[in-house]
Amino acid sequence: MFAQTPKPPYYAVIFTSLKAKEDQGYGAMSDRMVALVQQQEGFLGFESAREALGITVSYWRDEASILAWKAQMKHQEAQKLGKERWYTDYKIRIAKVERDYAK
Amino acid sequence: MFAQTPKPPYYAVIFTSLKAKEDQGYGAMSDRMVALVQQQEGFLGFESAREALGITVSYWRDEASILAWKAQMKHQEAQKLGKERWYTDYKIRIAKVERDYAK
Repeated sequence: MFAQTPKPPYYAVIFTSLKAKEDQGYGAMSDRMVALVQQQEGFLGFESAREALGITVSYWRDEASILAWKAQMKHQEAQKLGKERWYTDYKIRIAKVERDYAK
Repeated sequence: MFAQTPKPPYYAVIFTSLKAKEDQGYGAMSDRMVALVQQQEGFLGFESAREALGITVSYWRDEASILAWKAQMKHQEAQKLGKERWYTDYKIRIAKVERDYAK
């Protein structure tokens, strides 16, 4: 459940969102995107939780990998529907992980 | 519910955790830490969600502010109990937010 990330530096994309009540097609699309992102060059893993607010943090080798995923055709379709239909609000932060430690 | 963060750059601390079944004193300590962190120099806000995995992202002006919070006496006590009692596992990543955007 914890993403198995390498020694820093690497990148994190922090996606914070509020979901709309309408859920039409969200679950299926989410499953497709989870499968698709694993094949993406430079993808390192992700962690996700939702209560009122949803937080998904995905980890990436570098910025180029993040930009390639953002531009991926099927992901662009998901982004469009997300903006129009599934999320009433969201914020995306791109951050460079400089150090990390565990229990 | 979204942290009202300024224009980047600023810092994010991504705290991912698995809670133990035992919850003794966790809620009260968590409330105290939420109150205390607001008074901390350089603190910008936080976002939090928990399902199986818990994710709390706190935002900070700079690394010095993060280190000062880590060293804060009452917070050190909370960290100690967290490690011993409340969390079966956790990972902490310190990252520099380089850019962000919203819906």
